[in-house]
Amino acid sequence: MTPSWKIIQGNLSTPAGFAASATRAGFKKNREALDLALIYSEADHTAAAAVFTTNRVAAAPVELSRRHLTQSGGRARAVVVNSGNANACTGRAGVAAARETTQHAARLLGVAVNQVLVASTGVIGVPFRGSKITDRLPALCASLAASRGDEVARAIMTTDTVPKSCVLRGRIGGRAVYLAGVAKGSGMIHPRMATMLSFITTDASASPRHLAAMLRTAVDGSFNRITVDGDTSTNDSVIVLANGLSGARLKTGTPEARFFQEGLTQLCTTLARKIARDGEGATKLITVEVRGAPTRADAEHAARAIANSPLVKTAVAGCDANWGRILCAAGYSGASIRPAKAEIRVNNLTLCRNGMAASFNEAAAKRELAKPDVVLTADFHQGGGSARMWTCDLTHGYITINASYRS
Amino acid sequence: MTPSWKIIQGNLSTPAGFAASATRAGFKKNREALDLALIYSEADHTAAAAVFTTNRVAAAPVELSRRHLTQSGGRARAVVVNSGNANACTGRAGVAAARETTQHAARLLGVAVNQVLVASTGVIGVPFRGSKITDRLPALCASLAASRGDEVARAIMTTDTVPKSCVLRGRIGGRAVYLAGVAKGSGMIHPRMATMLSFITTDASASPRHLAAMLRTAVDGSFNRITVDGDTSTNDSVIVLANGLSGARLKTGTPEARFFQEGLTQLCTTLARKIARDGEGATKLITVEVRGAPTRADAEHAARAIANSPLVKTAVAGCDANWGRILCAAGYSGASIRPAKAEIRVNNLTLCRNGMAASFNEAAAKRELAKPDVVLTADFHQGGGSARMWTCDLTHGYITINASYRS
Repeated sequence: MTPSWKIIQGNLSTPAGFAASATRAGFKKNREALDLALIYSEADHTAAAAVFTTNRVAAAPVELSRRHLTQSGGRARAVVVNSGNANACTGRAGVAAARETTQHAARLLGVAVNQVLVASTGVIGVPFRGSKITDRLPALCASLAASRGDEVARAIMTTDTVPKSCVLRGRIGGRAVYLAGVAKGSGMIHPRMATMLSFITTDASASPRHLAAMLRTAVDGSFNRITVDGDTSTNDSVIVLANGLSGARLKTGTPEARFFQEGLTQLCTTLARKIARDGEGATKLITVEVRGAPTRADAEHAARAIANSPLVKTAVAGCDANWGRILCAAGYSGASIRPAKAEIRVNNLTLCRNGMAASFNEAAAKRELAKPDVVLTADFHQGGGSARMWTCDLTHGYITINASYRS
Repeated sequence: MTPSWKIIQGNLSTPAGFAASATRAGFKKNREALDLALIYSEADHTAAAAVFTTNRVAAAPVELSRRHLTQSGGRARAVVVNSGNANACTGRAGVAAARETTQHAARLLGVAVNQVLVASTGVIGVPFRGSKITDRLPALCASLAASRGDEVARAIMTTDTVPKSCVLRGRIGGRAVYLAGVAKGSGMIHPRMATMLSFITTDASASPRHLAAMLRTAVDGSFNRITVDGDTSTNDSVIVLANGLSGARLKTGTPEARFFQEGLTQLCTTLARKIARDGEGATKLITVEVRGAPTRADAEHAARAIANSPLVKTAVAGCDANWGRILCAAGYSGASIRPAKAEIRVNNLTLCRNGMAASFNEAAAKRELAKPDVVLTADFHQGGGSARMWTCDLTHGYITINASYRS
């Protein structure tokens, strides 16, 4: 029997040696909502890796966390995260607030300052009152518990409608190993980098360099394959902490490391799909499958263009089998595709064959498009290049949410 | 006094020697609506130039018109255009239908087949019944008149809410010269190429090569600077016919040619802005001005990213002064901009200074954003690079229109 990872009930502190806590700090308009969380690893030598936004306008916590990871050589013991204010475009005051947060937390937890990471999500450009965090840090540290990991998933939500988490259990070298993650969306989601926020814990151990490589692979196959609106946030961060308390030690190139990589990718993919499905205003998860492209790069270009096309996404929202928009998006994507042999399907129903309308039942197409999971397949029958992306439909809800986000 | 072009009342057949006609051919669901038009130049040696879509999935009329212009060495006497069916992704039957249209029209008008151009706009992938056109061509040719140019602007509309046209009068070498144009949007509008459809007539004369160069310059400064939804159509075509009947002959590099270029660019810019203002569901024209970027290319990248950002566009729809989204879009655009000195204004009101919130009156910002013309300026104070784009706000109307375009 091939070993595999199993999805289990649990939370971010299910892996051995992790604890968490969350509270209300007053960043969110809804004063009842959690908006500040702390993730903590009790093990001295916890390896940490992260993938951050590629946006040149990076938020203060992104800049600071990046620096801390470099200074510590890829070690971290804690993450402090708030929602409701992105601490982006907040100038020197924003940077100072992020620094004070890490200094306070380090003192309270008895760890090095550069082993505390920070993350923020919310409105951009609103002055950031760091005292909202530092005032609450003593209580947060005092209430750290292994039972409170699920509060983190709730505390990082902004326009998300559901908390997003996933926990996997596998066996490595005879030992039970856990991988747990939380994530939040749900606007400003665009690939080519990490997504908004995701935090991952595991009790396996790996060198920081190895952990970073594995995280990069997992992110490329998951968070970098989703898009909600093509907008790339200033705050995107995926952070993984690996404390080794399971006793499972991963070495590069071993079957164990490959197995761990599979689990990490599966965890990230599950979280990424949850983000896409809960995209702002979304009612459906759309999987875009491109096949038969001349090369993998061609397939990538085509899949991204289709997943980003507002016209494709509104058609899916309206259950309109407008396959011409899919072919059109592939056509302008830059991919070397020819329409002559193109085949387009929604789920298992063929809408277009040889680049032209296939005879399909309009009512049957509407039924497929009305499902909560819609797979759009474009097969160009030109070669072996394939790629996959996840996105959501574009609805009135997106407009409503974003026309007055600040106010 | 510097000579200038003057906007006058008129239509596509205001320039000497042009005639037009339009009719109902049954492509549109609304059987009362015009959906077929003919543009005709009576002069034997009418120069023609065009800019077509860069989409690899190009519609049959685009492929055929491109070939005809090559074969004729840049001469054309007539354009046949329909709306309601794009004749794209229609296979060999679609190509045959376009070819028959040009053959019929050539015979009826007594001109060479390769001097007839065709264009289509509407739904992609619906079988194209060419007989709908050929049946109506005799009546179209018989009713050609210099008074009917305005019908063309109406016959090419799809989701456009208003017909779009512009006529300019100037003097070249003591002679009155006219430039007239029509255009249609209003979805699948994305720069880096021509827009949906635009037809331009003039009674100046220029060599086909010179005319093509002038059209390219005009399009780069106008149609290539608008975006509605980032989707690049399969059918985009801008065609100019120059018949020389004014007696004004343009030679490369002369002041007269530069003056004509100014008029052509002004005409295209006016039409492009009309398309952006009438973008699907739009309630406002947004002008994006980027200044102070390190280079012009940086400014271009930033301006395009801002104009394409759904988050910026929904914020303008909702009159929400969310300037952080503007800075964020510039940040992920690939432009080498630094946020530290960035200044962001809506019309004349400053929202952000030195990359941080300026103290502005929220009600005043709402008033500016509620105007039908909104200028978003991002000045990075880094260098001399500047660029401009036009777009529209993103509203519920866009979703409503596109969720059921086919049905």
